[in-house]
Amino acid sequence: MTRSWWGWGDLEEALTAEETEALVARTAAFLPAHDFTDHAPPSPDDLPVPPSRLRPPAALARLCSTDPADRLSHARGKAFRDVVRNLEGRVEAVPDVVARPESEQDVLDLLHWCSTGGTPVIPYGGGSSVVGGIEPRFPAPAVSLDLGRLDQVVEIDRTSRAARIQAGVYGPALENQLRPHGLTLRHYPQSFTHSTLGGWLATRAGGHFATLATHIDDLVESLRVVTPAGVSESRRLPGSGAGPSPDRMFLGSEGTLGVITEAWMRLQERPQWQVKASISFARYSDAVRATRAIAQSGLYPANCRLLDAAEAFLNTGVQADGLLLLAFESADHPVDAWLDRALELTADHGGTVTARRGESGSAWRSAFLRMPYQRDALARRSMVVETFETACTWDAFESLHEAVTTAANAAIAEICGAGVVTCRFTHVYPDGPAPYYGIYATGRWGSTVAQWDELKTAVSEAILANGGTITHHHSVGRDHRPWYDRQRPDPFAAALSAAKDALDPAGILNPGVLLR
Amino acid sequence: MTRSWWGWGDLEEALTAEETEALVARTAAFLPAHDFTDHAPPSPDDLPVPPSRLRPPAALARLCSTDPADRLSHARGKAFRDVVRNLEGRVEAVPDVVARPESEQDVLDLLHWCSTGGTPVIPYGGGSSVVGGIEPRFPAPAVSLDLGRLDQVVEIDRTSRAARIQAGVYGPALENQLRPHGLTLRHYPQSFTHSTLGGWLATRAGGHFATLATHIDDLVESLRVVTPAGVSESRRLPGSGAGPSPDRMFLGSEGTLGVITEAWMRLQERPQWQVKASISFARYSDAVRATRAIAQSGLYPANCRLLDAAEAFLNTGVQADGLLLLAFESADHPVDAWLDRALELTADHGGTVTARRGESGSAWRSAFLRMPYQRDALARRSMVVETFETACTWDAFESLHEAVTTAANAAIAEICGAGVVTCRFTHVYPDGPAPYYGIYATGRWGSTVAQWDELKTAVSEAILANGGTITHHHSVGRDHRPWYDRQRPDPFAAALSAAKDALDPAGILNPGVLLR
Repeated sequence: MTRSWWGWGDLEEALTAEETEALVARTAAFLPAHDFTDHAPPSPDDLPVPPSRLRPPAALARLCSTDPADRLSHARGKAFRDVVRNLEGRVEAVPDVVARPESEQDVLDLLHWCSTGGTPVIPYGGGSSVVGGIEPRFPAPAVSLDLGRLDQVVEIDRTSRAARIQAGVYGPALENQLRPHGLTLRHYPQSFTHSTLGGWLATRAGGHFATLATHIDDLVESLRVVTPAGVSESRRLPGSGAGPSPDRMFLGSEGTLGVITEAWMRLQERPQWQVKASISFARYSDAVRATRAIAQSGLYPANCRLLDAAEAFLNTGVQADGLLLLAFESADHPVDAWLDRALELTADHGGTVTARRGESGSAWRSAFLRMPYQRDALARRSMVVETFETACTWDAFESLHEAVTTAANAAIAEICGAGVVTCRFTHVYPDGPAPYYGIYATGRWGSTVAQWDELKTAVSEAILANGGTITHHHSVGRDHRPWYDRQRPDPFAAALSAAKDALDPAGILNPGVLLR
Repeated sequence: MTRSWWGWGDLEEALTAEETEALVARTAAFLPAHDFTDHAPPSPDDLPVPPSRLRPPAALARLCSTDPADRLSHARGKAFRDVVRNLEGRVEAVPDVVARPESEQDVLDLLHWCSTGGTPVIPYGGGSSVVGGIEPRFPAPAVSLDLGRLDQVVEIDRTSRAARIQAGVYGPALENQLRPHGLTLRHYPQSFTHSTLGGWLATRAGGHFATLATHIDDLVESLRVVTPAGVSESRRLPGSGAGPSPDRMFLGSEGTLGVITEAWMRLQERPQWQVKASISFARYSDAVRATRAIAQSGLYPANCRLLDAAEAFLNTGVQADGLLLLAFESADHPVDAWLDRALELTADHGGTVTARRGESGSAWRSAFLRMPYQRDALARRSMVVETFETACTWDAFESLHEAVTTAANAAIAEICGAGVVTCRFTHVYPDGPAPYYGIYATGRWGSTVAQWDELKTAVSEAILANGGTITHHHSVGRDHRPWYDRQRPDPFAAALSAAKDALDPAGILNPGVLLR
């Protein structure tokens, strides 16, 4: 597979000409006035990548690359605004060195070198950040610390169902190493193919499970983190009450406190029983109430994805004001009784079962994993296409949803002219849902990044004003900073900042993310 | 009810003469040589409580008490070593002022007064610490900050099933306020009657549920914490990925980073369906394997308490090498199918169902809540009676259990002469159990604190050396410090210490606990 330098994922996985044509036709059906001219990416060799300003010490030279193409491919994540800037050939900040440690000692040595010179270091997993998490958005020379060579499952404890895993392993390589043992992490963010365990941990990624272990946080038994102040390793424990959790300080620290090099992760057996159903609703408010009833039932479905009308039509072709995709799974026992009870709850709220066991999980999963490729195909055609997400309590959802969609539609009308907003729940909790929004709007080539930034500001303000979080699982990075700074309690910000000073006294770790 | 000044709970709940006689007879059956002479507590009025060294400012005088009896009742927690020191009339450090804030502003004003003078402040909930968490074990004058007047459920969100609750409310008063709304926190630590929400949060208390929400951490939606650097309030969110969790820094901070004044807590509906079973095993190792199978099954029992032979006999009269008490509950649906599958798993490992629906939960709960009263009755009779607890991964359990019981029995033989060690699991996880040990040993009056301290050192060393945590849910306090300091990663200690300096620059909050 060949990693795309400008867009999502692998070149071989991009939409075929036929798929692209169908996508454009579907999109043109609701945006007939849009200009779908294709803007192909420039060749990276033609781009003016500035020369590296850093010279690694001889002992570290074997780990360091200053190749322009290598550095360019580490310059940005894979948000819409990253992809479009690539398409436009806009080279901005590029790391001066890409360093690829092969051992924990290499990480220590590289951090030592950078601490000594005050050189910013950006820990890099799979580079799939959609929030500006890996971009050196500052004038100083920077090192991109690519953990990709630390990619081994080192140790497996079959009894406790856990494994010690190096942080740089990508999703598929991780699962390939676990499969012979009959185990799986079963953590599938949309970026699964193009992101790493360390990236998931550093950003508190959201995964496969719609309930219970929604974030990767709960799958962590212990962490090993290299900081400029030394190596922090927590004990492998199933649970503990010994002071504030050390792991919870590093989970979500986004490379600002240290470099996660290893983790003991809790694993699952492969599910033997799976049951699924799709339930349609004539009224979205009924669908929300049914979903809440399931979230509060103690049944804990593996999937509980409520699609609104636009989302349902675009993704499944179903016409319904709400479409709930429900699935239960188990490695231990049949789960029909679980689904039966959940369907009683949906029936109580006016739901109609449109399929049971019908819709294939692998079909949905494959479509889910390919969504970012569709985004890129439309981005090339001057569309403003991006997602944003949040979480709120159930009592706040109706007003938040109304405010967010109103703000989005008003901004689309003003900034773009025409477009649609879609919504689905990716995860649900007893006390609230995690709504995930998509925007498909007409843009003007050369202006779509600015158009998106305006849209994003409008919806982010609506989220903050209506009780949401600026991110449920996309993390903060640089793009969410203005709203994160307002969401976070000030005393906690002071405490976190002091903790960072203790661990990273030279202030080299991922500057601009979360903190200074 | 009248709170005991020297021992656990309320005087009216202490063992009756008849119950005491039966307990002594049961204990004498396995410790026939022990001297069971009763040592009654002294009158607190006869104890030499030193005069207060602090004079609160006039504006705060109405909140402050310097009454010797009041101060004496805030001087210690309720560990065995606290109770015996009370029985012996040993007055050591006593807080100089007991302050009872009536509002958050009072808390701010009290912290301001103490910060200005550098006066240590010990946040006090119900005073039931068993780890020296509330004892001013230092020479400086101290204020005990008793939150008991902040005892209201302020706001209820029925839709999201959550409530905003003041931290000083005791368990029963909290449940009484929730009951009219058909809701419950359903968090029942053994101290339920004599401890507060704020205490549970500050110490990461373990509650009712044997699986899933074992610690109170997972029931927290948001926290409001008064620190000397200002008030920290997190957003009410069902889930978030915006940086490291602010709440997880305060959960388990044991009064060292701030004073928790309020929390939005996730609630449950009252369970309508409950099924229970007791399963006996001829071999303890089979019982452990069966319990592990259930913990890893995804069935999530509410109770999953494995008693060893001594624990089973002492608590239920059943003779078995292992006795598993299992319960499922739901407010939404019958759970017979869940229990049926769990019993298939126990049968696979040689378990025999001895009762189904038979054993009453309220009987066990009542016995559970009265255990500390039994400890006190035996403590008066020169017994060394105390519990300690840990958690470890399943692969480590066998060796940890062997090491801990060997260390305990060797220490009992050497230090006490005779005694028994018991074990039960209080909580279980897919990757490991939380074993809870009891020691009943003969002591010599006047020496039992020192004897316990020696025993505790021996078992704590065995726990640390064999992969356990120094505490699963009793917290760290002052008593666990030597082992906590070794368990905690050094860089995390540095980060936590820096965070404390930022929030509590005068270093007044609960000195000696967790940190300096």
